[in-house]
Amino acid sequence: MENNEESSKQDLMITIQSKFQRLSKGQKLIAEYILKHYDKAAFMTAAKLGISVGVSESTVVRFANELGFSGYPKLQKALQELIKNKLTTVQRLELSNNFISEENALKGVLKSDMENIRTTLEKIDHNAFEEVVNGIFAARKIYIIGLRSSTALSEFLGFYLNLILDNVNMVAYGMSDIFEQLINISHEDLVIAIGFPRYAIRTIEALNYAQSKGTKVVAITDSVLSPLAAKADYTLIAQSNMASFVDSLVAPLSVINALIVAVGLREKEKISRNFEELENIWQEYQVYSFKENTRK
Amino acid sequence: MENNEESSKQDLMITIQSKFQRLSKGQKLIAEYILKHYDKAAFMTAAKLGISVGVSESTVVRFANELGFSGYPKLQKALQELIKNKLTTVQRLELSNNFISEENALKGVLKSDMENIRTTLEKIDHNAFEEVVNGIFAARKIYIIGLRSSTALSEFLGFYLNLILDNVNMVAYGMSDIFEQLINISHEDLVIAIGFPRYAIRTIEALNYAQSKGTKVVAITDSVLSPLAAKADYTLIAQSNMASFVDSLVAPLSVINALIVAVGLREKEKISRNFEELENIWQEYQVYSFKENTRK
Amino acid sequence: MENNEESSKQDLMITIQSKFQRLSKGQKLIAEYILKHYDKAAFMTAAKLGISVGVSESTVVRFANELGFSGYPKLQKALQELIKNKLTTVQRLELSNNFISEENALKGVLKSDMENIRTTLEKIDHNAFEEVVNGIFAARKIYIIGLRSSTALSEFLGFYLNLILDNVNMVAYGMSDIFEQLINISHEDLVIAIGFPRYAIRTIEALNYAQSKGTKVVAITDSVLSPLAAKADYTLIAQSNMASFVDSLVAPLSVINALIVAVGLREKEKISRNFEELENIWQEYQVYSFKENTRK
Amino acid sequence: MENNEESSKQDLMITIQSKFQRLSKGQKLIAEYILKHYDKAAFMTAAKLGISVGVSESTVVRFANELGFSGYPKLQKALQELIKNKLTTVQRLELSNNFISEENALKGVLKSDMENIRTTLEKIDHNAFEEVVNGIFAARKIYIIGLRSSTALSEFLGFYLNLILDNVNMVAYGMSDIFEQLINISHEDLVIAIGFPRYAIRTIEALNYAQSKGTKVVAITDSVLSPLAAKADYTLIAQSNMASFVDSLVAPLSVINALIVAVGLREKEKISRNFEELENIWQEYQVYSFKENTRK
Repeated sequence: MENNEESSKQDLMITIQSKFQRLSKGQKLIAEYILKHYDKAAFMTAAKLGISVGVSESTVVRFANELGFSGYPKLQKALQELIKNKLTTVQRLELSNNFISEENALKGVLKSDMENIRTTLEKIDHNAFEEVVNGIFAARKIYIIGLRSSTALSEFLGFYLNLILDNVNMVAYGMSDIFEQLINISHEDLVIAIGFPRYAIRTIEALNYAQSKGTKVVAITDSVLSPLAAKADYTLIAQSNMASFVDSLVAPLSVINALIVAVGLREKEKISRNFEELENIWQEYQVYSFKENTRK
Repeated sequence: MENNEESSKQDLMITIQSKFQRLSKGQKLIAEYILKHYDKAAFMTAAKLGISVGVSESTVVRFANELGFSGYPKLQKALQELIKNKLTTVQRLELSNNFISEENALKGVLKSDMENIRTTLEKIDHNAFEEVVNGIFAARKIYIIGLRSSTALSEFLGFYLNLILDNVNMVAYGMSDIFEQLINISHEDLVIAIGFPRYAIRTIEALNYAQSKGTKVVAITDSVLSPLAAKADYTLIAQSNMASFVDSLVAPLSVINALIVAVGLREKEKISRNFEELENIWQEYQVYSFKENTRK
Repeated sequence: MENNEESSKQDLMITIQSKFQRLSKGQKLIAEYILKHYDKAAFMTAAKLGISVGVSESTVVRFANELGFSGYPKLQKALQELIKNKLTTVQRLELSNNFISEENALKGVLKSDMENIRTTLEKIDHNAFEEVVNGIFAARKIYIIGLRSSTALSEFLGFYLNLILDNVNMVAYGMSDIFEQLINISHEDLVIAIGFPRYAIRTIEALNYAQSKGTKVVAITDSVLSPLAAKADYTLIAQSNMASFVDSLVAPLSVINALIVAVGLREKEKISRNFEELENIWQEYQVYSFKENTRK
Repeated sequence: MENNEESSKQDLMITIQSKFQRLSKGQKLIAEYILKHYDKAAFMTAAKLGISVGVSESTVVRFANELGFSGYPKLQKALQELIKNKLTTVQRLELSNNFISEENALKGVLKSDMENIRTTLEKIDHNAFEEVVNGIFAARKIYIIGLRSSTALSEFLGFYLNLILDNVNMVAYGMSDIFEQLINISHEDLVIAIGFPRYAIRTIEALNYAQSKGTKVVAITDSVLSPLAAKADYTLIAQSNMASFVDSLVAPLSVINALIVAVGLREKEKISRNFEELENIWQEYQVYSFKENTRK
């Protein structure tokens, strides 16, 4: 499954190269241009790509068909996928203009996020998911790290795992550096790292450190090509295709929901007891709104 | 739209009352039981409800039909919706057992979250959404508050709005209390409050305080019946139906994505400039992973 | 030692009562006024107290002598000590005007803080200090809690203990409530609570919870009369006499320094190893400034 | 004043060089050794330094006298001061063994901290202090940054300035990077940076950025030789001589106390109003312990 995605990237380049000899002269020019400048090509219309190379727009369209795409937009999307991780925010913002306007932002984003979850459900490795749940129960200590916008996800995961388990450590920026918080990790522990494009460098460095200690790593990330996946024993892929300049963490959050539920259901008895105690505390100390204690 | 939901709650009780005279003797017993003990009835099977009241299971089913439901499960679901906010976590955990097991957690949760987004797209008030975007640009200062699990959402919203705007203040637990962070709010400001069941008391208290200062309030919450909506000038409804004992914040996160995108697209020029500067900083100070600077 | 202080408070009231019969008629009026209104009396000059009661200033001075004070200012100071914890910030601000002006703030505050350390050195229980060090090494887990302005102290203590020990947990406001962070404490653990006037309620509630679990408690606070001391197995007293409306946490910080040093010196070997590893990390990941890696 | 300290460092080296010709042959060997290896010499006893150089211990002592020191320990201390900022934590730990044991930690640390405040009172630039207070009131926005152990100080300062002023921004590690939090600073703003050995690199980088924007900078640091002072318009020097491997932030905290008091006294009217409102809030929402609302 994961290999499919990685190969799909290579596939595109390999497909272009393997079909090269059979291409028309004009198509060969396009192929050469794309192999060299795919990061530019990915943002050109068929017409503009034609002009850059010196061929007609229809030649570009036929080239796309020749590679097996139903039209130029599909080829362009494949190219964009390829370079997604290397886009700067400015390029993203530009890119988003093609897809979305202020007027249709609400509908466009929500639909795109539903699509992200659907694709995630198809792509995610169900065995890896089960292994992660096993790994969580097998670990001496669990460390959760997610920086930058992924902090929202790691804190949410930590918040709930803390209600269920006794050995969860949040790793986050603060007075202490990331590394000081990891200084005592061992091969008996588990690091759950959450990161989506654009990947925070410190998260990757933390995984380097975890690897040097022999600690098991779970990555929750967007692709097997992600630098987090490269350091992980288990990878849960959740699609984060940007609706615009924002990383969409909706599908990743849904996967994290599922992880919390799966862990919780295995420890049903224990969390029932924990929650009963917490309910009393929450009521006594007025954490949540109950009819009686809300000030009017 | 919003009125529909509120009325739908009253409707159920009103429907029961208005149809009361036409009900059979056995059905009247059920009606009385439900009007008094709907929080218990919501978790009973048709058979058990029948036993509690002293009627047959089929009488219970006919009662549901009489109220306009296609079967008892639909009536039961309507009752559960009604009391959702008052469920303790222990009850939720019990409730979730009926819907989800560890084995199907992944599939079950992701599908339920897609459904949450779909329902949100139907329910959300598009005019309110536009008004919120306008309100964000009209405000002198913007305060974002979300406590407990909603912290993940408020931090994500704050993270991105901070990249776009110059007047965003995060309100969060820390050394200073919530109220000290709000001490200077005025009628020119905007408070965006995010809260889902189970509602944090401090968020509601913060909105009381905001109201006392004449500050405009936007609530991002799960229902017009939410205590946050009761204090808000504008309410964005996002469905958070629990997959299990976890509050699902997936649909709310998608709505927040849309809000960030809509705000960003209106300030395209400015954020292009901001992002260009940030790109330089990110590269110089190695915040994000670039090919050149990741340690191997 | 600690009893002395507590008794010194009761002493003042008891002394007044026990000497009551021997007092002159005018002095009796003063005594009655003070017993009822000591919170007002504490802020009156001898002259004003005389006027309030209807006696001469010199009667007030003789009354102070009668109680064993060398002058009225000493009596007034004793009264102020008595009510310190009940002062609102507004009263403190008013009170500070008598002692300090913007012009002499720097000198006044620094001198007062030196005095605070000197008094602390006299008052602090050296045996308790040693017991606390022993307790830290005996505990399964160590929880450190300090809210409001005391957060600065608890974070500092946690920052350093984390570099030395493997079982330190910071308890602080955040997504999770204080109680959720303490949910797993047992009688094998140690809670170090830091709190100075005005005492945060949540810290006291946390100690109630710790007591209910049989967990050992160390209080770092300003007096044996502090509500934290009332819940503690060991109490380290550090003087926090306000220079003005600010709680001075200078002497408490010095005590915490000493605690870190004493713990560190007992684990010299281990922290040497830890620090060597950290030095490498700090250099590799550019945490601290070294000649080579500071950008000019 | 500040020049004195800087020159005192150069003085030592210059003194050695200027007196070089008049030194005895053995003393010349010592001088050469120190000029080249002062970082080693600083940790040698007179005897050991003698052995390293090939002279007698008494020659070393006379060399110290020749330079104007009353004995070798004074020369050694001057050398240690010189290299303080370059010490690793491991060296510090070793160094501390000479001064302090677990048994006398409490007394040793508290006395050393009193001494730190006394020295600070002598060294600090009173005019700069007043200028800083003026600068705080002149600024459009105030940004406070302190990382690593200095976070304790910056949060304390921010906590109180926030109660007095309406334009205080804390800059701290979190979801957003330091630079994103500073992205909108201008020449009308004021950055207060707090940093003590070992200086956090990110704080220095933040000041580089502030300088590039023309923003005024106040440094609260340990020496005019500090990298923070090098970027600052105003520098407040507070002595942080380590009691041991810990940075002592006691004298810096006392200076910050004084700063808060001086700012507060200038805005007496306003903070009286603020505090009155806060008192009501604190009581209503049970932030601080009052007799009536503490749970027993």
